[in-house]
Amino acid sequence: MSNTPLGEHEIIQIIQSRLTPMPDMLVPFGDDVSAINLEGKQGAVLKTDMLVRKTDVPQGMSLFAAARKAIVMNVSDFASKGVVPTAVLAAVGLPKALATKEAVAEIAEGLNAGAREYGAYVIGGDTNETEDLIISISLFGTTSVSNRPVLRSGAGVGDILAVTGLFGKSVAGLRLLLGNYKASEGLREVLVDAVYNPRARLREGLALCGGCVSASIDSSDGLAWSISELARQSGVGFLLDCLPVAGEAEEFAVQNELDLVDLVLYGGEEYELVVTVAPSRWVEAQALVGAVGGCLIPIGKATSIQQVRLVLGGREVPVVARGWEHFKSRV
Amino acid sequence: MSNTPLGEHEIIQIIQSRLTPMPDMLVPFGDDVSAINLEGKQGAVLKTDMLVRKTDVPQGMSLFAAARKAIVMNVSDFASKGVVPTAVLAAVGLPKALATKEAVAEIAEGLNAGAREYGAYVIGGDTNETEDLIISISLFGTTSVSNRPVLRSGAGVGDILAVTGLFGKSVAGLRLLLGNYKASEGLREVLVDAVYNPRARLREGLALCGGCVSASIDSSDGLAWSISELARQSGVGFLLDCLPVAGEAEEFAVQNELDLVDLVLYGGEEYELVVTVAPSRWVEAQALVGAVGGCLIPIGKATSIQQVRLVLGGREVPVVARGWEHFKSRV
Repeated sequence: MSNTPLGEHEIIQIIQSRLTPMPDMLVPFGDDVSAINLEGKQGAVLKTDMLVRKTDVPQGMSLFAAARKAIVMNVSDFASKGVVPTAVLAAVGLPKALATKEAVAEIAEGLNAGAREYGAYVIGGDTNETEDLIISISLFGTTSVSNRPVLRSGAGVGDILAVTGLFGKSVAGLRLLLGNYKASEGLREVLVDAVYNPRARLREGLALCGGCVSASIDSSDGLAWSISELARQSGVGFLLDCLPVAGEAEEFAVQNELDLVDLVLYGGEEYELVVTVAPSRWVEAQALVGAVGGCLIPIGKATSIQQVRLVLGGREVPVVARGWEHFKSRV
Repeated sequence: MSNTPLGEHEIIQIIQSRLTPMPDMLVPFGDDVSAINLEGKQGAVLKTDMLVRKTDVPQGMSLFAAARKAIVMNVSDFASKGVVPTAVLAAVGLPKALATKEAVAEIAEGLNAGAREYGAYVIGGDTNETEDLIISISLFGTTSVSNRPVLRSGAGVGDILAVTGLFGKSVAGLRLLLGNYKASEGLREVLVDAVYNPRARLREGLALCGGCVSASIDSSDGLAWSISELARQSGVGFLLDCLPVAGEAEEFAVQNELDLVDLVLYGGEEYELVVTVAPSRWVEAQALVGAVGGCLIPIGKATSIQQVRLVLGGREVPVVARGWEHFKSRV
């Protein structure tokens, strides 16, 4: 029994149960970021997320793109809480074969590009010799205590569930890169670009998190997982009446006879925000996101029944809390 | 040419040269920590350092001790700047074989113990699947802008060079664990304990860095390297008239016919502080360290000749800027 490999979420629970909790944290353990009180009504917001070549860098992705992605993964969590990233630390583990001037320069340029794209600076780091390429990023930003980061736990019954973009391109692109799937040249280009050049919804997150969303999470572990987390932490359920399907994902699903719902719900590596908005704030929320060039797509509603369900062909089917999980998931 | 593996210091230089510098940093790139200005005369201090099993966790070291060490490595850098660590993030990369409840719990307990030992809390993290155990720690703390972290670059000619403890036990212990060396049972125990249970000199660092040291660095890359860094960044040299040799290291060197000077200067994985103190502050500095139960051992003086030299057998011999360096060093 003790030799059964655990899933990522179980591992996090075991770790958390062994830690002495810091008193008065601004954001509880288990949200997208960590945050603590500073003097003078400020809060420090912190996040760490590690990119590992074997699981996070698909074939054909350049070192520049991998390093940039390591930053984007972290910025996406800041975006979901409405926090501006200020500074980046990068701990880079390099296998010997990558300890060359060209490779190191490319990684550094990717780190810098990723940070600058979102207004942050890389201010320090560490390098080590590892068996595989590892880029462990830490992000730092500040928040005012009166304007706390938006938590996962604030959704109320009746709130509108919404996303900042359409889903399915990244997971389709990943399958194309890893498996025996087909796609026309133009489609392939779009799908693979979604994998190689992910974008964090920072502008949308900053626009939304000034008070008009009740809960927020990023979707990097998959749409179903993110919605389930909002439900679990808020003590509500969700009824989805519309799936945010990217047209290219639909095309890919048709061409390869794949289940489109599965592709959109249980993918992962997508960096949209999943938020809830009280109906009275909906028009304002849409306008705020529109003003920064984004969009806010309603996909369902929070319910008092604590289940996540999807209206499919006129019937309600359960959505399970499954998503990308290290140690368990395989594309 | 492009395929020659680089050393860690060259890699850091290449990375740094590709980064857009953040304006107005409190601590320049290339010191023990990074620090930036916050509102209200506060500064945020950040540090990341990655522990990799293959290079940082010798045989026989428990997962608890490895996780604790990952924290100590980072706290030591805060100690050298006189900054209190407040919060820890831990990104943990686990090979499948360690994704068990027992192993994960032991790692979490080591992280918690390391953090609490120095007054900090683990407030968040990330887990990933990796080929080897990796624990990438980020440390956060604050400082007041009027009481900036002590830099590596402040040593002045005539300043006393001093250390907070004796050297050589860790490197001797490491050799014992890795190679074909001998030591009596009692000696072995002391030396191996130095490897398994390193301690950061936080109390000493906090006592010293209130204004009475002119420059400071930790010694995790080795004594010679640390002194050379103080010299390079301060634009001075040092003449060492006394080596801070631990009795146990001397015993080990004699028993194994090893060069003691080499062991003490070019070891590494020791977490003493190496500081410079103006002669007028020396008595105060010693008293402050003594008051927290530590000691401050003078080992030389800063010189205008920009070289590091050691008085050995009545002659001055050069000390080279060599130390533990990933990609290059082998025990």
